[in-house]
Amino acid sequence: MSLLTIGSVAFDALETPFGKTDKIIGGAATYITLSASYFTEGNNLVAVVGDDFPQSMIDDLNQHGVNTEGLEIRQGEKTFFWSGKYHNDMNTRDTVEVQLNVMENFDPVIPESYQNCQYLMLGNTAPAIQRMVIERLHTRPKLIVLDTMNLWIEIARPDLMGLLPLVDVLVVNDEEARQLTGQYALVTAAAKIREMGPKTVIIKKGEHGALLFHEGQIFFAPALPLAEVFDPTGAGDTFAGGFIGHLAKTDDVSFENMKRAIIYGSAMASFCVEKFGAERIMNLTKDEIQARVSEFVKLSAFGLE
Amino acid sequence: MSLLTIGSVAFDALETPFGKTDKIIGGAATYITLSASYFTEGNNLVAVVGDDFPQSMIDDLNQHGVNTEGLEIRQGEKTFFWSGKYHNDMNTRDTVEVQLNVMENFDPVIPESYQNCQYLMLGNTAPAIQRMVIERLHTRPKLIVLDTMNLWIEIARPDLMGLLPLVDVLVVNDEEARQLTGQYALVTAAAKIREMGPKTVIIKKGEHGALLFHEGQIFFAPALPLAEVFDPTGAGDTFAGGFIGHLAKTDDVSFENMKRAIIYGSAMASFCVEKFGAERIMNLTKDEIQARVSEFVKLSAFGLE
Repeated sequence: MSLLTIGSVAFDALETPFGKTDKIIGGAATYITLSASYFTEGNNLVAVVGDDFPQSMIDDLNQHGVNTEGLEIRQGEKTFFWSGKYHNDMNTRDTVEVQLNVMENFDPVIPESYQNCQYLMLGNTAPAIQRMVIERLHTRPKLIVLDTMNLWIEIARPDLMGLLPLVDVLVVNDEEARQLTGQYALVTAAAKIREMGPKTVIIKKGEHGALLFHEGQIFFAPALPLAEVFDPTGAGDTFAGGFIGHLAKTDDVSFENMKRAIIYGSAMASFCVEKFGAERIMNLTKDEIQARVSEFVKLSAFGLE
Repeated sequence: MSLLTIGSVAFDALETPFGKTDKIIGGAATYITLSASYFTEGNNLVAVVGDDFPQSMIDDLNQHGVNTEGLEIRQGEKTFFWSGKYHNDMNTRDTVEVQLNVMENFDPVIPESYQNCQYLMLGNTAPAIQRMVIERLHTRPKLIVLDTMNLWIEIARPDLMGLLPLVDVLVVNDEEARQLTGQYALVTAAAKIREMGPKTVIIKKGEHGALLFHEGQIFFAPALPLAEVFDPTGAGDTFAGGFIGHLAKTDDVSFENMKRAIIYGSAMASFCVEKFGAERIMNLTKDEIQARVSEFVKLSAFGLE
């Protein structure tokens, strides 16, 4: 089944304890579609960039099978830019600079050819824009997955609360789950989020793995213990891309298949952090992914006698 | 196979956001032997208390099959006492008061009937005392498991470094692993600890589960996501007791069986936090334990198609 992803396509400039980059390709939708490209074929992007965005990067997306018909290129405007600096523990970062540019009035246009997508990934952007995408689809997709962040919980909570009943799966990290619900225990936070609308909640815990809550059932996915995290940028989006990419490929939204999707998402995220930006997930083979997934299986498998 | 446990048997006074206790039974060896009692039969305790320690508590231990022949009762002296207060997040606590009392010159005497124990659990106490126990055994046990804490890493590092080559398994939490090695990444910290002596390292991550490192292999055990932690006191010792109790019962120190042992330890720890002190692990049935272990199986099981 085909997938529709909306979100930012951007320039990032990153600084980590291991080095720094000039402007490189970034943005939630970039990571999501690249990650999903290893799973699903119909991989349709809706985003906006300025005329400073290089054709070579669009070619890169196309070479990964990403359909960029819905990538609007606004003449005379500039692409969204974010720069950030990670602290030594790699778990916290400061935003050094944000230039919203084209994102300031992103008005997502859905190409007619995208209208039948059954899987919708609402990558992190303003809830009002995410909602527009749902409203502009003629038929409701089979599964709508929403990502959001602390910024929107702070400044756009009413929009977000209005959006939650319209989606099937919310993907957030542990701090966002706590911020959204005021609950410290993640079990309780997930239950509160499910009352807000989404019947499935995924809480990402970074190096501690991820929890999937679905109709009273819980799955705990491990994270691969890594000796070194080179650059965490995009890991959450890459996780989401692997997750929905697997679901779209298999067209199966059962709890059992969502577990597998989380393992695939976790495997993809574990690659993402190995190099700056999207470099690693632009250059993966299916064999490498299968080998990594096998590591996850080994990592958490046990038998009771 | 029979198990020998050394460590503190103590009085604790606890305060959590849910309430407070008067002096209740506590101490590492109490939790370890109670937890192990649900698994192994030969369950031998070496510890010291004062003459203020009530016979009824010794009777409780005996009723759980704990052999207290090695529990020295020192006349005219008082039992080790610790009181602590937990903060609202339940992850941090302050020590309110410590009275070392009999622990100040604990000189562990091994009864002759304990000499053939094949499993030795060195519960948290001064490394010099833990070492004495190894030296006082006529034959080396098949498996020696060591627990320690931040205090000993700070004030008795040379003793601890001398002890590490003598043990098979080190059990520490994530912060202790970092403090011991100076390494932030747990994979790297575990590798460094293995260079210090123990061929197996278990790193407990509290609500995030536990990692088992053994000869280049890694196992990630989930923690049961809990809506409420009533009192975390003794959870780590209860984990260790379930771990070594299962190993002693099955007399199998393979990686596969250690994985199972960690799941049993995690299940026992998940009970421990439900009530104050050791109350919950004093009153468990084997059916309750099996049901809890099944929850762990469900929590982390997935199949790739």
